[in-house]
Amino acid sequence: MTDVVDTKRPKKSVALSGVVAGSTALCTVGRTGNDLHYRGYNILDIAETCEFEEIAHLLVHEKLPNKAELAAYKRKLTGLRQLPEAVRKILEQIPADAHAMDVLRTGVSGLGCIMPEDADHNIAGARDIADRLMASLGSMLLYWHHFIRSGRRINTMTDDDGIASHFLHLLHGERPEPSHVLAMNTSLILYAEHEFNASTFAARVIAGTGSDLYSAIVGAIGALRGPKHGGANEAAFEVISRYSDPDTADADIRRRVAEKELVIGFGHPVYTIADPRNKVIKAVARRLSFETDSMAMFDIADRIERVMAETKRMFANLDWFSAVSYHRMGVPTTMFTPLFVIARTSGWSAHAIEQRQDNKIIRPSANYVGPEDLHFIPIQYRV
Amino acid sequence: MTDVVDTKRPKKSVALSGVVAGSTALCTVGRTGNDLHYRGYNILDIAETCEFEEIAHLLVHEKLPNKAELAAYKRKLTGLRQLPEAVRKILEQIPADAHAMDVLRTGVSGLGCIMPEDADHNIAGARDIADRLMASLGSMLLYWHHFIRSGRRINTMTDDDGIASHFLHLLHGERPEPSHVLAMNTSLILYAEHEFNASTFAARVIAGTGSDLYSAIVGAIGALRGPKHGGANEAAFEVISRYSDPDTADADIRRRVAEKELVIGFGHPVYTIADPRNKVIKAVARRLSFETDSMAMFDIADRIERVMAETKRMFANLDWFSAVSYHRMGVPTTMFTPLFVIARTSGWSAHAIEQRQDNKIIRPSANYVGPEDLHFIPIQYRV
Repeated sequence: MTDVVDTKRPKKSVALSGVVAGSTALCTVGRTGNDLHYRGYNILDIAETCEFEEIAHLLVHEKLPNKAELAAYKRKLTGLRQLPEAVRKILEQIPADAHAMDVLRTGVSGLGCIMPEDADHNIAGARDIADRLMASLGSMLLYWHHFIRSGRRINTMTDDDGIASHFLHLLHGERPEPSHVLAMNTSLILYAEHEFNASTFAARVIAGTGSDLYSAIVGAIGALRGPKHGGANEAAFEVISRYSDPDTADADIRRRVAEKELVIGFGHPVYTIADPRNKVIKAVARRLSFETDSMAMFDIADRIERVMAETKRMFANLDWFSAVSYHRMGVPTTMFTPLFVIARTSGWSAHAIEQRQDNKIIRPSANYVGPEDLHFIPIQYRV
Repeated sequence: MTDVVDTKRPKKSVALSGVVAGSTALCTVGRTGNDLHYRGYNILDIAETCEFEEIAHLLVHEKLPNKAELAAYKRKLTGLRQLPEAVRKILEQIPADAHAMDVLRTGVSGLGCIMPEDADHNIAGARDIADRLMASLGSMLLYWHHFIRSGRRINTMTDDDGIASHFLHLLHGERPEPSHVLAMNTSLILYAEHEFNASTFAARVIAGTGSDLYSAIVGAIGALRGPKHGGANEAAFEVISRYSDPDTADADIRRRVAEKELVIGFGHPVYTIADPRNKVIKAVARRLSFETDSMAMFDIADRIERVMAETKRMFANLDWFSAVSYHRMGVPTTMFTPLFVIARTSGWSAHAIEQRQDNKIIRPSANYVGPEDLHFIPIQYRV
């Protein structure tokens, strides 16, 4: 075990950059500039080999399951896909033009009212809530999605094998292609955990006051919603889908770069050399595109990646080819960040539990830049 | 303007203690050990002189209003007491035994679905949301409270003069005593703002990703819910209400202190000498108790305060006599922390707006304490 000292230059656009805010046994990010480990396992070893449930078990239940443990865990999760009636009624109140992240934030908060955490906040209970959320976040989003569009009250209890297939099945109303299930598992694993990123840190700040797990996840969803964080994969898709072919994209991106416009989906506050997840999700995007003989979007994304490397020395991050992959699986853009939520709920929950065990409240100081010692004038004399 | 360097010894139970996480023009806490200023105004000048709306205007709209501005502001807030039908229906789904903080968390999240922030996240729009929330948080809580207990769908649009009287009116179903309105205004002012406390910091972490104001407030409510933070005023009440007279309290608290038991309501992570808010709220508690000729609870709280000073050199914080004050106004214990929410929404919103203007994501580092470079074994070979 070693202390991690962040030797990278603090970024001006990031507060607390490089400042250690606590301890974790969950994750290391970018120690060599382009590596990522979950509880000591290299992301490149696990991303295409595991199912998401193995990694959720690793993060939330502290170990990779063996075959029997995985089977039992998946049975448990399968049994948690049902939504309480009150949660369904809450979701039915949310209008069709609502932000999908607001739907999840409200659904999780509502579930926390209806099936609250035990008052003693024991760890086993918190893990049960994490499992229930991972199993039913897709139910929440897609129950609302179908109800609000067609009035259909879908049955969210399916016999799909895992969280990936459950989501795609509820979305499309039919069993997904095996290759899509594989791709979705890889995507969920890549998005599962990333140390003290802003949404995870929000979850830890909330958990640090002794609050319940639902509150921590609700806060994390709110943080992930932001365009500088989880919202970036939707923005990346908008960039890619602007173009009809690689040459047009090439010319336009060069023009935008010359005009100092920011291109979403490139660079990262922690990785310095490359995002190790990019080559994995890029291979997924290529395979999905090849299978359906529709390489156009992939080729555009690939060309922009090369232009950004050449002109800005910037590397594509996970969001870039995730956008292509999700699109190829028929996932609407508004559901990109919610998929990130389903994945990251594993990491958020594990961090919230760590913070609780660490028993520390997170309470920094501020640099005061306001007025000093103003003379108070009561309202009757105030002008 | 000066840089604030926190020279106090970092507390072991607090992460990031004394570490500057950003700038604020809103508040200084405990610079001399026992002082508190909101935008440069001493809390002792404003707590008993102002209405809460003056301070909400100071925090959210950056200045103390003059008479005409205050009147206009109060008219605006009065017009925002109505809840959309969909929010009422969401609240009706929440069971009677739900935590009142979960009700507010869900109500605010639901309102964020139904009346979302403008996509461009302009500051005027954020301030409008802050105002709507301050005006309607009491409506949410008390609509749910009455519906779930008696099935009554109360009309939350009253002509009460301010937020303090609106809350007490909806709670008790009759116009409150002027002395209670005064006391509630003071209490709301004292709870309005407190620099980078955990819930405010949660709001800033969420706002830092570019997320919407509802998400920031929802996360802050989740953080305030914790017993180490806002939940402490309810715990303080439980301590005080254990005893029937000062002598019994005196003996029992001495015993508990000798056994190293923590007494909630004493000490503070930032103040070193005293909590300046204590003497203000203590005077309020004394006055309310004297008016109704029921000094017993005040006397018990007063005695415990003396015992804690004598045995532990610990001072009562704001929560201690707030508990007595709220009880004397007939506020149920479960609504103590929700009142804190109504007050602090002014500070939270102002901080979230500051963070947005500062344009920084908050992303600290972690100290890794987990296993290194584990050898991955695929599931078929895993034991």
